[in-house]
Amino acid sequence: MRRIQDLAIDPARLYASLQALGKVGSYRDARSGLDGVCRLALTEADGAGRRHVVAAMRELGLDVRVDRIGNVYGRRAGTADVEPVLIGSHIDSVPTAGIFDGCLGVIGGLEVLRALDDAGVRTRRPLVVAFFTDEEGCRFGTDMLGSAVATGRIPLEVAYALTDSEGVVLEDALAAIGFRGEARERVDPPAAFLECHIEQGPLLRARDLDLGVVSGVQSISWHEVTIVGKSAHAGTTPMDLRHDAGVAAARINLGLRELIASGRFGQLRATMGAIRPTPNLVNIVPGVCVCTVDLRNPDDALMRAAEAEVLALYERVAATEGVELSWRQTARTDTVPFAEAVRERVAAAASAQALSHAPIVSGAGHDAQEFARLCPTGMIFVPGENDGISHNPRELSTVAQCANGVNTLLRVALDLAETP
Amino acid sequence: MRRIQDLAIDPARLYASLQALGKVGSYRDARSGLDGVCRLALTEADGAGRRHVVAAMRELGLDVRVDRIGNVYGRRAGTADVEPVLIGSHIDSVPTAGIFDGCLGVIGGLEVLRALDDAGVRTRRPLVVAFFTDEEGCRFGTDMLGSAVATGRIPLEVAYALTDSEGVVLEDALAAIGFRGEARERVDPPAAFLECHIEQGPLLRARDLDLGVVSGVQSISWHEVTIVGKSAHAGTTPMDLRHDAGVAAARINLGLRELIASGRFGQLRATMGAIRPTPNLVNIVPGVCVCTVDLRNPDDALMRAAEAEVLALYERVAATEGVELSWRQTARTDTVPFAEAVRERVAAAASAQALSHAPIVSGAGHDAQEFARLCPTGMIFVPGENDGISHNPRELSTVAQCANGVNTLLRVALDLAETP
Repeated sequence: MRRIQDLAIDPARLYASLQALGKVGSYRDARSGLDGVCRLALTEADGAGRRHVVAAMRELGLDVRVDRIGNVYGRRAGTADVEPVLIGSHIDSVPTAGIFDGCLGVIGGLEVLRALDDAGVRTRRPLVVAFFTDEEGCRFGTDMLGSAVATGRIPLEVAYALTDSEGVVLEDALAAIGFRGEARERVDPPAAFLECHIEQGPLLRARDLDLGVVSGVQSISWHEVTIVGKSAHAGTTPMDLRHDAGVAAARINLGLRELIASGRFGQLRATMGAIRPTPNLVNIVPGVCVCTVDLRNPDDALMRAAEAEVLALYERVAATEGVELSWRQTARTDTVPFAEAVRERVAAAASAQALSHAPIVSGAGHDAQEFARLCPTGMIFVPGENDGISHNPRELSTVAQCANGVNTLLRVALDLAETP
Repeated sequence: MRRIQDLAIDPARLYASLQALGKVGSYRDARSGLDGVCRLALTEADGAGRRHVVAAMRELGLDVRVDRIGNVYGRRAGTADVEPVLIGSHIDSVPTAGIFDGCLGVIGGLEVLRALDDAGVRTRRPLVVAFFTDEEGCRFGTDMLGSAVATGRIPLEVAYALTDSEGVVLEDALAAIGFRGEARERVDPPAAFLECHIEQGPLLRARDLDLGVVSGVQSISWHEVTIVGKSAHAGTTPMDLRHDAGVAAARINLGLRELIASGRFGQLRATMGAIRPTPNLVNIVPGVCVCTVDLRNPDDALMRAAEAEVLALYERVAATEGVELSWRQTARTDTVPFAEAVRERVAAAASAQALSHAPIVSGAGHDAQEFARLCPTGMIFVPGENDGISHNPRELSTVAQCANGVNTLLRVALDLAETP
């Protein structure tokens, strides 16, 4: 067998494969003039993307398995019939995405297998490349859904019953695109889980680092807030008789900014991403407003403190505007630390290639955090241009940046696949 | 001919007619459990409402004319062939309406003619009852559209070219419901114009008045504001690198409240009724937000001062959040004073019935303000229960409140119809 340092992936082939998948569900962004990707989970576009990747898996001769929640696993046999090394991420997207988010980990995993085929390398442990259903959570409101079901955090029937804003039931959407598989959804604990992903932030690029060795994922808390005021005529209703649900949402939005400005919650990030007033017309005081709050924090204690402050903010705003306010938790995860053993291997593999690297906390949620419950897990972050902008057609990592990440994925996967 | 004080409308018949029209395009409001009305301009429901009223006009033997913008006029001949007295309002509605807004003026006008028929009264001047297209402006963005076209403020081709949020062209929508008429859209100046309408506010009821003698309509200014920031990942984008279009909209919304609180702009009312962020998803910083600002003021000078302050607010917010902000004026009218001669007749007719009344400024725009350019014009306001709530299924004026308004409409119309 060739020595590990002689093995390498083909950067041009990797990038071409990313671009090919990026053409599925692509659209022309009017504002920027760039091509973006819209493959919302379980839409026809997602189905087309899934068929595209499954075809690539079959070309590599992988044993393809689709489970009941629509997760897809492609298995390359090892010399021993033992727990595999699992390489995975997602190919669903937000409505305004680039071509790298998630796809780099899946297409990169397939490129690792291609490189091994080219070199005639067989590993001791099987290698499995997987993509998981609805990681983004944009359509059905729960992110990391497929990996959460596979690892047992969310029961299958709960996932099946989720509905989108049009009332479409997730199980029906899965069946409609032909990906409600037969295989058992719970996955047997693999030997290790690896995910290569773009940083989706500015830090690596700003510090001129080639790679980030992900130490863990920050805590995430999502609220859906429903504000009920009183819709009324904009021209005739005196200001002091109003109960404006839109104004209440605005107070919450700016209240979140004040929490950040207070500096009392460390690296807290807070976003009101969705704002949906009713009836949403120029001359009617909004009677109802549904909005979302997204909180992130790399420190669990500071996250809990911030959540308490946010609930107090809700109460203050409801009292100030004379509105009824209710909220429900649509996502909540504590910080997830990744395995020391995997982090050391990632750092070693990067150093062996003379790549500059540093530990970094993931700002986003990833499928890897679900697998961290089951097995030693690690992530490799690739820097992005344009301040690491993501969920946007301007999302961009270069050929070299992607190749560094996937070559490191190759080395760590091989390392772990040979480990007894 | 019977003496005027012996003439009266039939309150029960009036109210039953209002309720019958209110069944057209009705829906069950989930929150209140009440029946609401949704007859957005030029929808199928509006078409059905129009056919309902046209049938009532034909039953009264009126000569029905539909003009090119879809305004409908029903004419009752006079003994002399002179300019008619025109009684009019609208039957289109906001999406969450009650049964009184606009309809009281149209159904009330027809009840006036029924009362005259019952009494065998023929007037010297013809009496015309009309309803005008898209008074609400909710769907095509321009309110008082039909009356503005009839009185020459808006050219027909400009009105025809308006589009709704789905891109439907107004002229096509008119044709689709069969109300793109043949008659010339410009109306010959009538002898006078009268409109009986609910107050849509709390003042008359709070002061226990039977009627409001409308002195004029306050100034109205509508802006559509487009904010362009930068959409980005909610979990990974540091707060200090954000350009959040939703936060900018929130700052404008609360900035409007501060203008009100300053007390520097008299009776200014300000509303952000529509807020439309893009992509409007929990985990993405809004990159674009389109919102509306509705300003009202009974004082033209204070309105101009408030508008200047609002533009300064836009600039401050754009600078604070690092976003691009553009706006367009979607409606703008100065205050409209009504004719002294008509106001005196309304007050006299109310007093003759021992009804308590007072002058009142209209908070909302009305078709009457368009006719004030053409001829002596006046309005009669009827109080409403529930703080005069309107644009809401809880909108309610009692049988007696409606009858007082329409009996006064009858007396003033007769008075003006006999005036040389």
